[in-house]
Amino acid sequence: MSTALFTDRYELTMLDAALRDGTAARRCVFEVFTRRLSGARRFGVVAGTGRLLSLIRDFRFDEDELRFLRDNRVVDAATVAFLEDYRFTGSVSGYREGELYFPGSPLLTIEGSFAEAVVLETLALSVLNYDSAVATAASRMSIAAGDRPLAEMGSRRAGEHSAVAAARAAFIAGFDATSNLEAGRTWGIPTMGTAAHAFTLLHDSEEDAFRSQIEALGVGTTLLVDTYDIRTGVETAIRVAGTGLGGVRLDSGDLPIVAAEVRTQLDELGAAGTKITVTSDLDEYAIATLAAAPVDSYGVGTSLVTGSGTPTAGMVYKLVARQEGSGSWVSVAKASTDKASKGGRKAAFRTLDAGTATQELISVSDGFEQMPATSEYPDSRPLQATFVSRGDIDTSFEGADGVAAARAHHARVREELPVRALALSRADPAIPTVYVEIA
Amino acid sequence: MSTALFTDRYELTMLDAALRDGTAARRCVFEVFTRRLSGARRFGVVAGTGRLLSLIRDFRFDEDELRFLRDNRVVDAATVAFLEDYRFTGSVSGYREGELYFPGSPLLTIEGSFAEAVVLETLALSVLNYDSAVATAASRMSIAAGDRPLAEMGSRRAGEHSAVAAARAAFIAGFDATSNLEAGRTWGIPTMGTAAHAFTLLHDSEEDAFRSQIEALGVGTTLLVDTYDIRTGVETAIRVAGTGLGGVRLDSGDLPIVAAEVRTQLDELGAAGTKITVTSDLDEYAIATLAAAPVDSYGVGTSLVTGSGTPTAGMVYKLVARQEGSGSWVSVAKASTDKASKGGRKAAFRTLDAGTATQELISVSDGFEQMPATSEYPDSRPLQATFVSRGDIDTSFEGADGVAAARAHHARVREELPVRALALSRADPAIPTVYVEIA
Repeated sequence: MSTALFTDRYELTMLDAALRDGTAARRCVFEVFTRRLSGARRFGVVAGTGRLLSLIRDFRFDEDELRFLRDNRVVDAATVAFLEDYRFTGSVSGYREGELYFPGSPLLTIEGSFAEAVVLETLALSVLNYDSAVATAASRMSIAAGDRPLAEMGSRRAGEHSAVAAARAAFIAGFDATSNLEAGRTWGIPTMGTAAHAFTLLHDSEEDAFRSQIEALGVGTTLLVDTYDIRTGVETAIRVAGTGLGGVRLDSGDLPIVAAEVRTQLDELGAAGTKITVTSDLDEYAIATLAAAPVDSYGVGTSLVTGSGTPTAGMVYKLVARQEGSGSWVSVAKASTDKASKGGRKAAFRTLDAGTATQELISVSDGFEQMPATSEYPDSRPLQATFVSRGDIDTSFEGADGVAAARAHHARVREELPVRALALSRADPAIPTVYVEIA
Repeated sequence: MSTALFTDRYELTMLDAALRDGTAARRCVFEVFTRRLSGARRFGVVAGTGRLLSLIRDFRFDEDELRFLRDNRVVDAATVAFLEDYRFTGSVSGYREGELYFPGSPLLTIEGSFAEAVVLETLALSVLNYDSAVATAASRMSIAAGDRPLAEMGSRRAGEHSAVAAARAAFIAGFDATSNLEAGRTWGIPTMGTAAHAFTLLHDSEEDAFRSQIEALGVGTTLLVDTYDIRTGVETAIRVAGTGLGGVRLDSGDLPIVAAEVRTQLDELGAAGTKITVTSDLDEYAIATLAAAPVDSYGVGTSLVTGSGTPTAGMVYKLVARQEGSGSWVSVAKASTDKASKGGRKAAFRTLDAGTATQELISVSDGFEQMPATSEYPDSRPLQATFVSRGDIDTSFEGADGVAAARAHHARVREELPVRALALSRADPAIPTVYVEIA
């Protein structure tokens, strides 16, 4: 399927005008960044890049797309002819998936002609803004959960495709499994799930339902015990399954209190090994509140897939440099005070002090040639990787392998955060963004 | 493309167990409803139903889907065989798209065997929860905007597929156009858009950019005047385009003040007919604030596609009635105090007093036969339509025609709301939900 119409109309009208006036061929550098960390978070987590690369591959204007543009007079015949042959031949570099980011971090740098780069704006932002919002929330939940496993269960509270992206982003940022089968198929994420209240209500009794589930899934399964009375539910569960029951799930009630009661009851029944999983309207704060409760794992839904109060990361896609007629480069930026951006091409490094991040160091230059080598900043880690080189997409960032690598990367770089970054309260970014201008 | 894996794993494990124990064939009634109006809104707006119907048609398990389920041992061989032939043969009725809803409104009623109905839970909720959240926010914005046109421009702040759904939901709830080209192609929604700041920055001067845009799009176009200095931008715009310029767009600054200044400047330049459109971080409250400002139209992005603080509608999919072995029907419901639901099959009516809504009247029965006829409630409007009858989907609710009908329906039923429902502040639902038990 072509992804070419996941695009705001103005990108094509700009292209149309630029093809007419000759500026469409100017070499440009576009940058994806965010002016601030939405929700006063202490760090953000990049996600979506691997997905985006595959979508860029499918960004082609086939007959169906061209017919729509022609029939609706979105662009003229010359632009239709240009789009017919469209293929992104530029370069894309940026932060790896799972990487942390801060205000101004150059998350993605897109280089190419104006024509080929301007049309990717909406697609790039749609993917990165949603996926990163979920990954950022997921990482905070993962910090709050500590060593307890986290399952993503929010598919029903996000659009059907976004649900799959959310499962993927959550896994990258520290979740262990998802309920979403498509995420399992497409991205290789472990899937989980046993039964809903409907299964108990379908049967003539709770006991019938439990017996049936154990018959099908074995005693290692997790029984949902709160359809009727929780105490009776737990008692029935152990009577039917025996003390080897894998787990019970609580989906309602005042969880710290209920979990403690259920733990005591399970222990008294001799089911000391039966685990307790809780799944009712959790977010990072609720998870933190449950840290001292006898809970073994969490399932998180609504709050995760809606970014826990911050459903979009607020990233923008801005032209930051372009070539002039003379061939020299010029930095460009919008001047308005409330939405100012920083022109110039950027190289980004995370400065480390004994392994702990201290600065987001961004060197800015007008052109391409003067970018600093990593060796200039010995106590820092370069943050950008090359994803697309002259139109060639590095496939190692795509698919299930890309997801696994991103998850490992996130776990690694989160270790660099100063301790204050792990608190959940609203605050300034954990480290300052520092710009260095390259003459 | 099959939509069958947009599904939580537990639906298939429940199916697996129910096929083994014989309960899978029990006739069931599932219901989609919401316990409360998220965000303390006064009404909700249903959207997504037409989209959902098409997705149900594509809910088939082909070889790829079955292989995933087999390879990952999600279900056993007998269940794989059942899914191979899966096709929804039940019935679906519910609220038309664009209809208003209140706590407890039976938004969708799904009747069929447990096996065929239980697997649609995630898909139905994903679609309805996201689309209705956007439609509800859109309707409030449309009320705040009055007669001024509204354009949806939020694609970049939602997942790439959700962006299309958002444009569709916004159009149903009163928006007039979208920037999203895919929404134009798939749903027949008018598309709009002219240029971004990048277009100005690409050129050697703002004047060059304006000249190029007018060359391509004509003087009726809208010029973005806030890349550098707004006053200079407006002056340049009129100098280049003449006083017949279609419009100017403001995307930053303190909009009520800036809009007034720009209006004065345009009038002084003789461009009294040039319109002002504003697009910077608007929501329903900002739109209301601009009611007295000389603004001609609004473009809304982030806030719209994220439901203006309520990114999901919070709908649930619950088993409310099932047939017993004897053939008689029994109402079922979860008993937990904080997530109780109301069992039984429901018929819904909006009671009207001189054309103004006074109650959401819901009659509840255990079975199918005793549902009240419309004639029993003469001063009311029946709220449910039949979407799927024994597996046959009514295509009139699908596609661009379905969207157009939904938009007209919303405009019509919104007229029934009492005046207090139009205020934007947090409050109780505009009308109470009243249940009538049918013996």
